[in-house]
Amino acid sequence: MPSSDGSAPRHLVSIDDLTNDEILKLFEVADRIRADRRQVSRLAQGSIVASLFYEPSTRTRLSFESAMQRLGGGVISAADMRASSAAKGESLADTVRVVGAYADVIVIRHPKEGAAKVAQRYAKVPVVNAGDGSHEHPTQTLCDLYSLRVEKGGIEGLDVVLCGDLKYSRTIHSFAFALARFGANLVCAPQPGFELPSYVVHRLRHEYRVEPHSVEVKDLETVAPQMDAMYFTPERPHQLSLFTDIREVNVKKFDALYVTRPQRERYTEAERSVAAPYFRVDRAALSGAKFRDTVVLHPLPRIDELSYDLDEDPRSIYFEQAARGVPVRMAVLGFLLGLFELGTAPPAPRSPIRLRTRGGIECGNSNCVTHAERQYLSPEYHLVSREPLLIRCAFCDHEQQVPLLGCSSTRHFHFASSAEVARIKPEHLVLFASEHQAQSAGYVAAGTRSSANRE
Amino acid sequence: MPSSDGSAPRHLVSIDDLTNDEILKLFEVADRIRADRRQVSRLAQGSIVASLFYEPSTRTRLSFESAMQRLGGGVISAADMRASSAAKGESLADTVRVVGAYADVIVIRHPKEGAAKVAQRYAKVPVVNAGDGSHEHPTQTLCDLYSLRVEKGGIEGLDVVLCGDLKYSRTIHSFAFALARFGANLVCAPQPGFELPSYVVHRLRHEYRVEPHSVEVKDLETVAPQMDAMYFTPERPHQLSLFTDIREVNVKKFDALYVTRPQRERYTEAERSVAAPYFRVDRAALSGAKFRDTVVLHPLPRIDELSYDLDEDPRSIYFEQAARGVPVRMAVLGFLLGLFELGTAPPAPRSPIRLRTRGGIECGNSNCVTHAERQYLSPEYHLVSREPLLIRCAFCDHEQQVPLLGCSSTRHFHFASSAEVARIKPEHLVLFASEHQAQSAGYVAAGTRSSANRE
Amino acid sequence: MPSSDGSAPRHLVSIDDLTNDEILKLFEVADRIRADRRQVSRLAQGSIVASLFYEPSTRTRLSFESAMQRLGGGVISAADMRASSAAKGESLADTVRVVGAYADVIVIRHPKEGAAKVAQRYAKVPVVNAGDGSHEHPTQTLCDLYSLRVEKGGIEGLDVVLCGDLKYSRTIHSFAFALARFGANLVCAPQPGFELPSYVVHRLRHEYRVEPHSVEVKDLETVAPQMDAMYFTPERPHQLSLFTDIREVNVKKFDALYVTRPQRERYTEAERSVAAPYFRVDRAALSGAKFRDTVVLHPLPRIDELSYDLDEDPRSIYFEQAARGVPVRMAVLGFLLGLFELGTAPPAPRSPIRLRTRGGIECGNSNCVTHAERQYLSPEYHLVSREPLLIRCAFCDHEQQVPLLGCSSTRHFHFASSAEVARIKPEHLVLFASEHQAQSAGYVAAGTRSSANRE
Repeated sequence: MPSSDGSAPRHLVSIDDLTNDEILKLFEVADRIRADRRQVSRLAQGSIVASLFYEPSTRTRLSFESAMQRLGGGVISAADMRASSAAKGESLADTVRVVGAYADVIVIRHPKEGAAKVAQRYAKVPVVNAGDGSHEHPTQTLCDLYSLRVEKGGIEGLDVVLCGDLKYSRTIHSFAFALARFGANLVCAPQPGFELPSYVVHRLRHEYRVEPHSVEVKDLETVAPQMDAMYFTPERPHQLSLFTDIREVNVKKFDALYVTRPQRERYTEAERSVAAPYFRVDRAALSGAKFRDTVVLHPLPRIDELSYDLDEDPRSIYFEQAARGVPVRMAVLGFLLGLFELGTAPPAPRSPIRLRTRGGIECGNSNCVTHAERQYLSPEYHLVSREPLLIRCAFCDHEQQVPLLGCSSTRHFHFASSAEVARIKPEHLVLFASEHQAQSAGYVAAGTRSSANRE
Repeated sequence: MPSSDGSAPRHLVSIDDLTNDEILKLFEVADRIRADRRQVSRLAQGSIVASLFYEPSTRTRLSFESAMQRLGGGVISAADMRASSAAKGESLADTVRVVGAYADVIVIRHPKEGAAKVAQRYAKVPVVNAGDGSHEHPTQTLCDLYSLRVEKGGIEGLDVVLCGDLKYSRTIHSFAFALARFGANLVCAPQPGFELPSYVVHRLRHEYRVEPHSVEVKDLETVAPQMDAMYFTPERPHQLSLFTDIREVNVKKFDALYVTRPQRERYTEAERSVAAPYFRVDRAALSGAKFRDTVVLHPLPRIDELSYDLDEDPRSIYFEQAARGVPVRMAVLGFLLGLFELGTAPPAPRSPIRLRTRGGIECGNSNCVTHAERQYLSPEYHLVSREPLLIRCAFCDHEQQVPLLGCSSTRHFHFASSAEVARIKPEHLVLFASEHQAQSAGYVAAGTRSSANRE
Repeated sequence: MPSSDGSAPRHLVSIDDLTNDEILKLFEVADRIRADRRQVSRLAQGSIVASLFYEPSTRTRLSFESAMQRLGGGVISAADMRASSAAKGESLADTVRVVGAYADVIVIRHPKEGAAKVAQRYAKVPVVNAGDGSHEHPTQTLCDLYSLRVEKGGIEGLDVVLCGDLKYSRTIHSFAFALARFGANLVCAPQPGFELPSYVVHRLRHEYRVEPHSVEVKDLETVAPQMDAMYFTPERPHQLSLFTDIREVNVKKFDALYVTRPQRERYTEAERSVAAPYFRVDRAALSGAKFRDTVVLHPLPRIDELSYDLDEDPRSIYFEQAARGVPVRMAVLGFLLGLFELGTAPPAPRSPIRLRTRGGIECGNSNCVTHAERQYLSPEYHLVSREPLLIRCAFCDHEQQVPLLGCSSTRHFHFASSAEVARIKPEHLVLFASEHQAQSAGYVAAGTRSSANRE
């Protein structure tokens, strides 16, 4: 919400939009709400949340709408945006500009990755990302972290197993980053073929200084035996287990097991046709000593990967986890609406190296929002690293390699393998899709000038 | 709502979940609400109803949502559940467990019969059945009864004609049971081929002690002449007219005529193809002396079975009947939320004879929820009678005959025709689908032991 | 809302349901709401609006629902009526009678023209037309007028260009009438083939005394050059420019440019196949001196007809225009609910000459609601003029010529060309579809009696 001093509204598009301190303070607010809901039951009176759901979702939508009403606020709800504005061909930017004028906060779910970031740019009110494709779903992450904290008293140093489709589950990606931020250890137990994407691994390693290690097969055998055998064969080098610190690799016990469903709606045709039967966690799988105090989480809905025989098990907390979504979202909405003071500093403004682009280099993620909204949206990239020469989409966070970079000062362009790439000043970096484009823009290959002189 | 003393929440899944006294008290509450709505306009402040509609319904959903807001409460609404959670393959049990944590009461409509009973088992909050297939729709029944009571000053002893599709209309079934409970007389005037199902007739006869009688053709001739001619031919023995007591069969006047639309969406292919033109009640049909004070009810929507020329007739109360749905549902929601004290005792716990099942005997109703939710739900049956050997599905109330019963004490099984079936103690009853299954479970046919001895 | 003295509720089905004074008073209410929203934040507490949307619309629906909640009222919302009641075959009249009992005001959008007028007839609560086919959308018109007034300080004497699909845009039609009522001047710049329909031109000329004039090509060249060349060729006599008064035809500057999207969903097959590329207004098009102070309006959603490069231009007010929809609709809802006193007289009862019809003359508009709801709705017509002999549908306002009229006093019928048509007294006018029908009803052709006498 534009605060009274005219400053820009806060958003929750990525979990990175909140500092660790802010997250912990929001959890304290959620604690207080759970202890006595009535004290906040009129706090948001006169405020309205707009639910804009371009993908159906009962759970998430109802959870937000319940949260807003538990705060005394109102709701305007579009459960099936595909059928209305979007069907008339309206752009996402226009929709959020208009609906942002009807409400005090927007909650958006969209199939395109990066869509919530587009909404944030154009709306004049706070935007909450309720899921953008396989990208992020930060309030889910907050609910997950909050449940861990409630059950285990804290997050730091916990050993958490991530289990299932680690490739397409946005829940898993956001949760992995968040666990890393709070100093928990991660063990990855992916469905074969659905390992953590390399950009997630890259970010864990480089932004959160998480180092991957192997774990012994025995450690996970009881979780999902049919999966582990494959898990550590040397032929599958991408299957990683990640630990945050210098702790022993051989974990004595697992604090939490986070299970996810197969995100079949996002599978490629190839994945759909060859996918092995998905594993199934049941009571028997958790009978080992290492799982004695393991809480079982699941973002729901489950399909078959979590047996109903676990429902009555005291270690199963997935329904409590879902229930806690309401107080957590009450805290988030109240905070974004300016109704709670957290007393903490906002995140320091991040200043990634933004690349000027010349010529149409496109995001390599076909599900990125920049393709769908190209009518008004230009691709934007940040520089991830110079060696390898990697850029990241400013909308969907997809990383891709580029063949060359230009320097706007020397008007030279340099190939990725060149050592000179490292020497270009950030403010001079220019992105080209190809040598040809660089030349069309009047840039010459580094070292070419002398050869040109020679001619 | 779990009351403060921790007792289980009350539900309204079947009209049998309320005693007659409770119903009459709820009607008094509805009277007071109609007299002055403002006195309850903040009663439910801070409470939320969740509408879970797996079948579209504007009328019922909006009526509940209006009722909740007239009480000052909030609403979270899923008008098209098929498109969201259900499409992701989530089970009904999981959905109500999760959504039950977002709300204080759940209103559910579902195409599968028995679905609301499943919801009741898994939700931690009160569940209101807003229609489960052709099974029950108890708040509709309350509205119907309430309208009768408002118009006629009471229900006992009234002569009520049920007219139209008596086979698939859940409204009719619930209404028939309720009229019987309150001592009204029923006259059935079904569309040919759409008579009251036998299990409904059976229940009327055995639970409510309603005896079927024939009525003279002349009595109904004016209602729908083209239908009556067929109605009483001896070739159609299932077409019944039911009266609750020793009154004269020849009714002098009808107090109410309850008309229903053809439930074509539930017809079998055969019914769809051969169905005769549906009858039509119009002003002319109600011109006889017997209909002078007959109020005309209809659960709406109507198609063609009720002429528009009746709309202005003072006997037509179907729009008032619909309007009264709001105060009645306000009373129901307030009661289930624990906001009203009725000062009446709850129904005595019913203890039907629950059968242990060995081997997979399945409910014969293909639309029963047990088929759709078999992932976690086991069939359950109650014993209806030993002669004939009849069981009733604990979810959808469908009755079916079974060929044999076992006794867990003697390890014998007995065929339905055997006199020994009557002698098995309730706690020893075991259900088998076939002789083969009984034998596989180690049971022997009664009398076989001696023959085995002989060998 | 039926007021306490029992008078009929006010409706907003057509912009003509409000006087100019009332509109200006509503604008003052909207001004006060924008200045301080809190003063009305509990005004509608206890009242409920029902949104009945037979066509999807996020923007309009959410705008009304936001407005009602900003007033402290509740909402029951049916975003996809086609999927529920309508799918069960329920008539519009029945739906509004029932839903009208659940709510205090109904907002309806419907694809059939005249549908809101049907709703008005049957509902017991106020009805707001949120768009009926290509017919009217009066609150959009109020928002448009209000934005003009806010930006320009008033409406009278403004020069307003209407640009784009002037044929199917209900927004344009209502806006044109309203501008005429308030004394603004209209310049029409239609997409070729999508000129103002003749009945709109006719009404502008005859009801609002607006005289059409040509404007020089140069005046509009900068708006959409590719369009103007065609615009004034003599081969296209229907392309008109309309001015309300004796002002100079050559406009010095334009106060407002109102752009609309192509309403492709309403195109005929022929229009779909031959439609020229739609024009596009961009910054360059508005660079001329005449456009220096031109505010740019658009009802949104836009497709390609309005360039994104205009979004940051201070003349672009289309997002503000959308945002002002909330205070305007708050004023409208509050007024219809009887919560605001405007202190102005309601419109004088209009008494158009209503024609008695004998025989089934049908509305020539195939999208008129009378065709879809013929089960209970009879066509009704008003006499527009005797020369030419024109009638107007009482529901959709479509005008059509008729071949003859009868006189119930003389029992004669007269052909359209006859001078005697002008002499029939209004109360004696009778409508026939054909000579044959008139004769079947016992009418004879005027002048025939004497010839009959001669025989």
